[in-house]
Amino acid sequence: MIILVVGAGGTLGRAVTARLGQRHTIVTAGRSHGDVRVDLRDEASVHAMFELTGPLDAIVATAGNVHFGPLAQMTTEDFTAGLHDKLLGQVRLALIGQHHLNDGGSITLTTGILAEQPIAQGANATAVNAGIEGFVRAAACELPRGLRINAVSPSVLREAWDAYGPYFPGFEPVGADRAAIAFERSIEGVQTGQIFKVW
Amino acid sequence: MIILVVGAGGTLGRAVTARLGQRHTIVTAGRSHGDVRVDLRDEASVHAMFELTGPLDAIVATAGNVHFGPLAQMTTEDFTAGLHDKLLGQVRLALIGQHHLNDGGSITLTTGILAEQPIAQGANATAVNAGIEGFVRAAACELPRGLRINAVSPSVLREAWDAYGPYFPGFEPVGADRAAIAFERSIEGVQTGQIFKVW
Repeated sequence: MIILVVGAGGTLGRAVTARLGQRHTIVTAGRSHGDVRVDLRDEASVHAMFELTGPLDAIVATAGNVHFGPLAQMTTEDFTAGLHDKLLGQVRLALIGQHHLNDGGSITLTTGILAEQPIAQGANATAVNAGIEGFVRAAACELPRGLRINAVSPSVLREAWDAYGPYFPGFEPVGADRAAIAFERSIEGVQTGQIFKVW
Repeated sequence: MIILVVGAGGTLGRAVTARLGQRHTIVTAGRSHGDVRVDLRDEASVHAMFELTGPLDAIVATAGNVHFGPLAQMTTEDFTAGLHDKLLGQVRLALIGQHHLNDGGSITLTTGILAEQPIAQGANATAVNAGIEGFVRAAACELPRGLRINAVSPSVLREAWDAYGPYFPGFEPVGADRAAIAFERSIEGVQTGQIFKVW
């Protein structure tokens, strides 16, 4: 398979690329690294990326930032930033990408444990991740040509624990290599509309 | 209680106003009708509304439009329209409104059955409603002063069945008067972070 990994320079993207690269051709993409440069916030940039890649068998998004901050100080602008970066960025990739997939191809987005298990300062993250999961559930019902779409929902990554651990009391971190296994299930399996939890 | 109902001119808003108006003071708001005019897409408009209303005991949103259309033709612009109108509009109301509630006050947003049960052409609706539910789950954990936040998730309204019924095969419609009961539970009850399903 030819698999596009957007966000390939990040911790999770590197793990997904390492695992899937053993048996597939990976095209890496990202804002500042990768075979192709792309900014998922920019419509033209996403179209340009697919012109470069040509037809694909799988599209993976491990990219997207959300806003963290106390609800009492959260502004609409703060909330919109996360909405546009992660939710709309991944949805844009899927909406445009559906037309660049070979029959039977798949799209795999990345959500996270906060979709279901809130933390302090995480209202934007929970909303954004829940929105991505909703999109996946619904889009799966409409995709033609055997196309599939799923999301992987990891817990906080062990590699990020030093930086983010204090915000996740009582959460079990998960290694990026373990989270990468779920991407393999999404891409090589048969299911669609699923949220594969790695927690 | 003094209760602000945004979207009071709509089918659901009228039912909520009729039920809660029996024992509470209702301030109605909407784009084209109501005691106060407001456009939830406009930050300044929301701030101006709260300057007019003064402190409140409950804030209700029954407003917000989403995009309906086939996934294969859906553009990022289509998706963004629903995201900004319903999800960001209701979140804006909550983020600003939290500072205008009396101690023990509540916010009640409106989601819908599509959050969990997709229909054809409904990917935007499912994502938007799921995002609202995520926001509610997380925001409830951070609100101070005994403030609460919930969402009501009705099935398609019986009053809208003639127009929308064909898009909802096998769904049971629900009367707006029955959906209004759940708003009463959110406002006068003790729970927070809940999605009250009326289906």
